[in-house]
Amino acid sequence: MNHHARWIWLPGDFELWLGARVMSRRTERGQPNPPFWRLDRPAQIVVFEKRFTLADADTVTISAQGECFAMIDGQPTADRVLTLAAGAHHLFLRVYNPDTFPAVLARGRLIGSDRSWSASRQNHRSEPADSGDFAAPDERPDRFKLATAPQAAVSVSRAGQALTVDFGRETFGYLKLHQVSGSGSLRAVYGESAEEAAAGDEAETWDDFQFADAAGDFVSPHSRAFRFVRLTWNRPLTVDDVSMLREYLPVPRRGAFRCADDELNRIWDTAADTLQLSSRELFLDGIKRDRWAWSGDAYQSYLMNYYLFFDNALVKRTTWALRGGDPVEQHLNTILDYSFYWFIGIYDYYQHTADRDFLAQIYPKLLTLMEFCLARRNGSGMVEGRPDDWVFIDWAPMDKRGEISFEQILLCRSLETVALCARLLGDADRAGHYQRLADDLRALTLTVFWDEQQGALVHNRVNGALRRDVTKYANMFALSFGYLDARRAEAVKTNVLLNERAQKITTPYMRFYELEALCRVGQQRHVLGEIKNYWGGMLRLGATSFWETYDPTQAGAEHYAMYGRPFGKSLCHAWGASPLYLLGKYFLGVTPSAPGYARARIEPKLGGLAWLEGAVPTPNGDIKVRAADGEITVATAAAGPATLVIRGVRRPTCAPAAAIRAAADGDGYELDLPAGGKYTARY
Amino acid sequence: MNHHARWIWLPGDFELWLGARVMSRRTERGQPNPPFWRLDRPAQIVVFEKRFTLADADTVTISAQGECFAMIDGQPTADRVLTLAAGAHHLFLRVYNPDTFPAVLARGRLIGSDRSWSASRQNHRSEPADSGDFAAPDERPDRFKLATAPQAAVSVSRAGQALTVDFGRETFGYLKLHQVSGSGSLRAVYGESAEEAAAGDEAETWDDFQFADAAGDFVSPHSRAFRFVRLTWNRPLTVDDVSMLREYLPVPRRGAFRCADDELNRIWDTAADTLQLSSRELFLDGIKRDRWAWSGDAYQSYLMNYYLFFDNALVKRTTWALRGGDPVEQHLNTILDYSFYWFIGIYDYYQHTADRDFLAQIYPKLLTLMEFCLARRNGSGMVEGRPDDWVFIDWAPMDKRGEISFEQILLCRSLETVALCARLLGDADRAGHYQRLADDLRALTLTVFWDEQQGALVHNRVNGALRRDVTKYANMFALSFGYLDARRAEAVKTNVLLNERAQKITTPYMRFYELEALCRVGQQRHVLGEIKNYWGGMLRLGATSFWETYDPTQAGAEHYAMYGRPFGKSLCHAWGASPLYLLGKYFLGVTPSAPGYARARIEPKLGGLAWLEGAVPTPNGDIKVRAADGEITVATAAAGPATLVIRGVRRPTCAPAAAIRAAADGDGYELDLPAGGKYTARY
Repeated sequence: MNHHARWIWLPGDFELWLGARVMSRRTERGQPNPPFWRLDRPAQIVVFEKRFTLADADTVTISAQGECFAMIDGQPTADRVLTLAAGAHHLFLRVYNPDTFPAVLARGRLIGSDRSWSASRQNHRSEPADSGDFAAPDERPDRFKLATAPQAAVSVSRAGQALTVDFGRETFGYLKLHQVSGSGSLRAVYGESAEEAAAGDEAETWDDFQFADAAGDFVSPHSRAFRFVRLTWNRPLTVDDVSMLREYLPVPRRGAFRCADDELNRIWDTAADTLQLSSRELFLDGIKRDRWAWSGDAYQSYLMNYYLFFDNALVKRTTWALRGGDPVEQHLNTILDYSFYWFIGIYDYYQHTADRDFLAQIYPKLLTLMEFCLARRNGSGMVEGRPDDWVFIDWAPMDKRGEISFEQILLCRSLETVALCARLLGDADRAGHYQRLADDLRALTLTVFWDEQQGALVHNRVNGALRRDVTKYANMFALSFGYLDARRAEAVKTNVLLNERAQKITTPYMRFYELEALCRVGQQRHVLGEIKNYWGGMLRLGATSFWETYDPTQAGAEHYAMYGRPFGKSLCHAWGASPLYLLGKYFLGVTPSAPGYARARIEPKLGGLAWLEGAVPTPNGDIKVRAADGEITVATAAAGPATLVIRGVRRPTCAPAAAIRAAADGDGYELDLPAGGKYTARY
Repeated sequence: MNHHARWIWLPGDFELWLGARVMSRRTERGQPNPPFWRLDRPAQIVVFEKRFTLADADTVTISAQGECFAMIDGQPTADRVLTLAAGAHHLFLRVYNPDTFPAVLARGRLIGSDRSWSASRQNHRSEPADSGDFAAPDERPDRFKLATAPQAAVSVSRAGQALTVDFGRETFGYLKLHQVSGSGSLRAVYGESAEEAAAGDEAETWDDFQFADAAGDFVSPHSRAFRFVRLTWNRPLTVDDVSMLREYLPVPRRGAFRCADDELNRIWDTAADTLQLSSRELFLDGIKRDRWAWSGDAYQSYLMNYYLFFDNALVKRTTWALRGGDPVEQHLNTILDYSFYWFIGIYDYYQHTADRDFLAQIYPKLLTLMEFCLARRNGSGMVEGRPDDWVFIDWAPMDKRGEISFEQILLCRSLETVALCARLLGDADRAGHYQRLADDLRALTLTVFWDEQQGALVHNRVNGALRRDVTKYANMFALSFGYLDARRAEAVKTNVLLNERAQKITTPYMRFYELEALCRVGQQRHVLGEIKNYWGGMLRLGATSFWETYDPTQAGAEHYAMYGRPFGKSLCHAWGASPLYLLGKYFLGVTPSAPGYARARIEPKLGGLAWLEGAVPTPNGDIKVRAADGEITVATAAAGPATLVIRGVRRPTCAPAAAIRAAADGDGYELDLPAGGKYTARY
């Protein structure tokens, strides 16, 4: 078998299947709780086809995920091992799979299934097939599972017919009971906190297991998130010990960060643990409670991922699973803003990966979702929440009526994403069309919402009446997206971002954007302080992963309550991991200056630290940076050149030598560092 | 349990699930062969809800087909037996089912699941749930199966390691091998003809079974259509005897027909057998080969069904399964004409059943399919085959290019169907809109295609050039739909229908419409001769069911060939059963003169027979008719009055007495017969 054949499927099918399987695993207080939005299924029948010319005879073996109807050169055949003479051939495989999704593997010496095959759900359209790493006949893509590894408890305390187990830190996986003997029922109550595991029916998750003449080890069929477990059972049963099988996505951490401040290092490590725990089949919001993919949450995970794993497949899986099928009848996750984050995530994905193939695959889905969004604009050409829409923005009290400036800013960037894709894919008409819509909406938004007196974008307009309230949301996004000129950016910095009287943000979710915007206006020192206060605050409360919300003014078990339930809060929530992104992007200072890191831009900022160092993954290899006062060392990616930017007045030196020029904006210098080298600049 | 609770589901889901299961069972020469069109899946998550007020306390037990998240009065509960106090309640059940489709059964004394519940696929829309006969917790709708009954072979001949079995007539079901002993492989080759069963690899269907240390009876897991089976196996295996489990839809034959001509009686019986064999989970085209639902074929089955079973559920199941989901991307079965038959079938369904609930259920699907059809009109406002469309019309050589008059006539009737539904459902704007489109297209079609010289509609117009060829298709449909005035109808009768030089129709499929049109212009005597010649011809060749095509000029095994294969033809094809319809509608003469047989119209025609008698099912009970020269006896339906129409000049008498008046058109008399009586009219 010389051909690098892969199992292939219709683009999106694997992810729709996987997404539904993953998101429907949520249980809540003993009953299943699947998502409350439309969850689409993959195709049921797919035709896979390939025309090829063999230079030599070949034998092709076909494996199908489903029932397969095969034709070779127009002739039906029940054979699954095809002997083909040299010359031109046409292989046609129609696969029906009502249970999971259709896929095929065709393996020969010279020819095999791969992304050059076409796939069609038999709707008069075909497109290049998609594939993953599944290569062997028994590696069916619908048997995809995460890895597991045994993990021991840190402490087990026994009191009669009850055991309380502590695994030492937040973890995820399958409970294992050792040497269960006898018959009876056992309840395992899981807790992210000790209080939750002890809370009985007030906990969020538990399992009831029934045993009949058990004699041996038992592994739960359900994976759960927990640090603590409390087991209770009735008399005739005995249980010797408890451990777990940790379930995880085997993906290496390529990003790294260390600095002179040990608390920051622990924050980075805990953020990495948090993101790793919630990076699974998909980027999940939190691992205990809903375990659903949410577009706004996933968007942040993508950005953090570019500074930790650089796992493109995971970004793509989540993007497909979130999008679902057509016709579009509601916003992603039912949330207005979450449709927009989906677009913007694709914009960022392209900036980091230059993966044009993915843009081509997903492009039709961008168009239909955008048409849905545009059709719901009001008479002024703006979006507002319709009765069916959830206008989320953040878990904070605010006016969600009418035209909200924040939503227009997100739509604007979404339109730019569609225009970008259209341009890259040679669809010039649509590129122009969507770019014009973006430009018009950006201008309209600034005209309508910019309040010259307050020096900020106001929050909303209701029934034509502009309201005067200023919130941070639109202002920080407009700043980060570069929609504000220097004068307005400065006004926003002063009047909104650094304004102590502005409404405080209390979710790590929106703190992500707030701190990003502060970094963009050079407030690294301020941001470091905020990170230490906010995330350090959770660590000081014993957190081993970062939380869904954190309000420093709360105390004790108050921290665990949310949604009106005492343990409703997720204590391992992906959006809590944003220091990964902030430290990588704005302190190590590594960003792509051309799509896919064809060139990296490196502008380290110490933010008051004596030194910092770390690594940032790129498609071309990792970039390593060490910065201290007066000295920056960069190891460029094996295949990626970089521009090192050093602000300040003294002209730097570089060893080995590199081209050095004054920065275009006059502030400092730029050094051109070739790929695969290690350079030390002194200034 | 006093409440008549039923399992409920989202309308269409049961049928999408069932349709895919049924249509994917086709095998062809040893390999599966699923349909070549997009086959949609049911919803994956459905919310079922009901608000109700209990006069007394009740206990409601919930069963779910899938994983269920329940809330009572807004509170989640893992309980599946709910104790409810008297008063107002809101029961909310979200069901996830990735394997089949979501459904629930809620059973209490006072309240239970039924069609008054709402169902939503969580797309911001809800609609009344649908249900069937499934009532008990263990009668899950996804366990729906047809009935089986043992059937013995008529003859078994043994020759060494081979058995040839004849079941005497066409049948369908699961082969049963008695007392299989030993190990080895066995091949069963099925044949609708003896020649096919003996043809080895040239047969259309076979099964290979493997046995290891077998000792006992064996039933094949696959149902097949056959009259003959040839079994061959290798030495170590022994088989004692062969029988089968006939699989069938247990539905009574309510229609009946007998007359003075025994050949016609045998034709009616064989037609009834043919329709019964192909009336299964869905109305299938033929039971041997593709076993798919085809809209054009199903349309005829519906009409025959109204004269044999009057099984509304089966019409609805097939209608849903054919339609599939949204977005519409192709014509039904990929065939232009087949989209139109789907609409027209709903028109006829309403005429026979007055089932307004079904119209309301399916109405959104009419709108989206019609929008698809209309969007594909050309600049002249007519439909023509686009590159992706299959323009079928009939298995006969003809020009399928450009604007074909036949297709416009079908679209016209389809538009009338949508207008009718809109009117009945109170959607006045759309009713007017679609009626105008229908009127305009009808006028345009007659203007463009009517050839005054030939006195007929010509077949087509290609690139603006009207062609002069006349085919029967458009002419007979225009006549049957009442689109021709008396002058044109007479011209069509003479120049097309009774014109010996017109292209002959060689499929029972189009003979259906041809003979119907002839009946409509009073050619019953001619039609009887045609039925005896054509269907009688198949009987004289030994047919035990009617065929997909029949060409009297062929001989021997030529009759079995089709699609370039020696046994490609289906010998039990639903569209072969049209005498059921013709004899019931145009000889017994029973039709609904108001929707749902609120009033029946009965106009028996002897067509040269000395006498005929029979029964026609209606929603109000069966109507029985016996006609002989000068005397007609009618037993009206238990709950349905009828108008008996007797053409001719003498004023009839009636016993018991009935109101008699001259027919509105001056030709004969009309008798008003009340429901539930038996009347004899003499004239």
